[in-house]
Amino acid sequence: MTVDIALTTVVGNPKRLSRTLSTAEALTAAIGAELGAEPHPASIDLAELYLDGIEPPHDGFEHAVTRIAKGRVLIVGTPVYKASYTGLLKLFLDQLPPRALEGVLAVPVTIAASAEHRLLADLQLRPVLAELGASLPVPSLTLRESELAELPEHVGAWTEAHIPAIEAALALGRKPIGALA
Amino acid sequence: MTVDIALTTVVGNPKRLSRTLSTAEALTAAIGAELGAEPHPASIDLAELYLDGIEPPHDGFEHAVTRIAKGRVLIVGTPVYKASYTGLLKLFLDQLPPRALEGVLAVPVTIAASAEHRLLADLQLRPVLAELGASLPVPSLTLRESELAELPEHVGAWTEAHIPAIEAALALGRKPIGALA
Amino acid sequence: MTVDIALTTVVGNPKRLSRTLSTAEALTAAIGAELGAEPHPASIDLAELYLDGIEPPHDGFEHAVTRIAKGRVLIVGTPVYKASYTGLLKLFLDQLPPRALEGVLAVPVTIAASAEHRLLADLQLRPVLAELGASLPVPSLTLRESELAELPEHVGAWTEAHIPAIEAALALGRKPIGALA
Amino acid sequence: MTVDIALTTVVGNPKRLSRTLSTAEALTAAIGAELGAEPHPASIDLAELYLDGIEPPHDGFEHAVTRIAKGRVLIVGTPVYKASYTGLLKLFLDQLPPRALEGVLAVPVTIAASAEHRLLADLQLRPVLAELGASLPVPSLTLRESELAELPEHVGAWTEAHIPAIEAALALGRKPIGALA
Repeated sequence: MTVDIALTTVVGNPKRLSRTLSTAEALTAAIGAELGAEPHPASIDLAELYLDGIEPPHDGFEHAVTRIAKGRVLIVGTPVYKASYTGLLKLFLDQLPPRALEGVLAVPVTIAASAEHRLLADLQLRPVLAELGASLPVPSLTLRESELAELPEHVGAWTEAHIPAIEAALALGRKPIGALA
Repeated sequence: MTVDIALTTVVGNPKRLSRTLSTAEALTAAIGAELGAEPHPASIDLAELYLDGIEPPHDGFEHAVTRIAKGRVLIVGTPVYKASYTGLLKLFLDQLPPRALEGVLAVPVTIAASAEHRLLADLQLRPVLAELGASLPVPSLTLRESELAELPEHVGAWTEAHIPAIEAALALGRKPIGALA
Repeated sequence: MTVDIALTTVVGNPKRLSRTLSTAEALTAAIGAELGAEPHPASIDLAELYLDGIEPPHDGFEHAVTRIAKGRVLIVGTPVYKASYTGLLKLFLDQLPPRALEGVLAVPVTIAASAEHRLLADLQLRPVLAELGASLPVPSLTLRESELAELPEHVGAWTEAHIPAIEAALALGRKPIGALA
Repeated sequence: MTVDIALTTVVGNPKRLSRTLSTAEALTAAIGAELGAEPHPASIDLAELYLDGIEPPHDGFEHAVTRIAKGRVLIVGTPVYKASYTGLLKLFLDQLPPRALEGVLAVPVTIAASAEHRLLADLQLRPVLAELGASLPVPSLTLRESELAELPEHVGAWTEAHIPAIEAALALGRKPIGALA
């Protein structure tokens, strides 16, 4: 039996079909499987979304906003570029309406080339997602590129550790309408 | 009926009996009342704890560590000093064992003199508490000094917004023994 | 007499001809006047640069990179969006080569709608510019929108305070070739 | 010939005579030698300063504040504890008067046990020092413990890269009296 818990994946790597995308999708799949969620639709690959320019509104953008707003869980993937999340990801977040992530449980996934940069994107991203109203009840999945060879193990360990907290948070019920400012 | 959910309050204002202390205690009392928790014992006022020097072990420190480890919810109060949390608070956190807050749900309370500094201590504090293993499923209570005149309203609004998420997180049961690294 | 100190202005407001642009240009003009610099060319308005898509190389991008690399001083303007710098600005910075700002003295200019957010973009932006190799010897100009009515006063006060440090830093001579990693 | 450029070293490792202290002193000595500064007096080891309690005023604290205020360059050492600078260091900074570092050129030195934490203390410390009015014209020296075996090489490389900018900043003359707020 599957339950109606929509998971959405959004990825801010400027390269289409990036390893960030496949990594974020692996986490989405693992969370979805644990939650018994419906198979989720295609990820929002921002490299595709902004292919023809940065100015919404356009159909792809509106579609993405709708999917995120209807979802309960948002997996947000970014590589670590220049010691932070990517501008491409932030460009998309900037264009969301205020408090657009109210009632959405967000899980960042970051991938860094070096150990020194491993935590940097996450440090900057969590306050941005919180500003948008997202709840962030569990730690992010922060990986180095060299760890991607053992991705199933990392995703498995993360899922085992944090699925209970995600389930508890989701048990609160559908997100509130017109919730807290 | 009360349930056994120990709440602990720790305050890092170098002045004893500070407004930070009374503010943090007001939030602790409000959360405790909502949760039906047992009346909680006296707060850990770090200005008292370090009165005679900074070097543990000493009885007060050990007692504080034990109380925090046994608690489920930790309210952490700090004024915003020099654009961040206080050194006094961090001194105490530094002396805790690694992952000492594993299984503890932490709620920061910060008080700033100016609007510009309102969010700064919180930005720096949450990663530190996360490093100690705390879960931080709800936003912090960040106040300006000028808002303390309406403290009950602010505490009430915060509590109404975030108690459900706290209850959900606590419903996970007693914190795990030897939990995730 | 004018000296050959190229100043470059880059602005990451997604709206073309924004107040961020005019504010950053006002600071550029004031710094240039104090330094006796040559009249500087048009600003790099990223809202224009990415009008037709996010994928360089294209002529405008290459031209912008060349101008920045040849400049000595870079004024970097951004509004505070979602508690940080804009994604548009970061998108451009992401596409610069590693250490592209080596030898460039950078001065951030941020504009926030609220006092609470006044310092946030700057906090996140300075480490990113430092990662790119920029030197940041002076504080940023951080303004609230409500202060723009007195822009000349704010620019004047900032300039009076910080021009000496800028002059001292520039007196080091042309930036090194193949400088420190 | 030596010139009158007082360098001060302050170290926030709670262990007296720590490796943080010897590392910071090595950098102070190297900078002093390059600048032709007078031999500098003993470092301010905060582990000693707060041995008997955290409440100034007491003689050691007043003496430390005076030395820092009279100095031109302040080397600030801290290990990375719990993903940030130490509470001990911040406790001292908290007790300084507002803008106490106006006119002081500060150079942070941080030592981390792991690569992941290498940059974290620096990220949080620089805004605190800037809030106190310090100028921070050069990057910090951020080391991992495993790099201390080659300390002379790291100090040498840092010094070669950044002494020119320090000299340029110091050439501005004695720090202003009653300088900018």
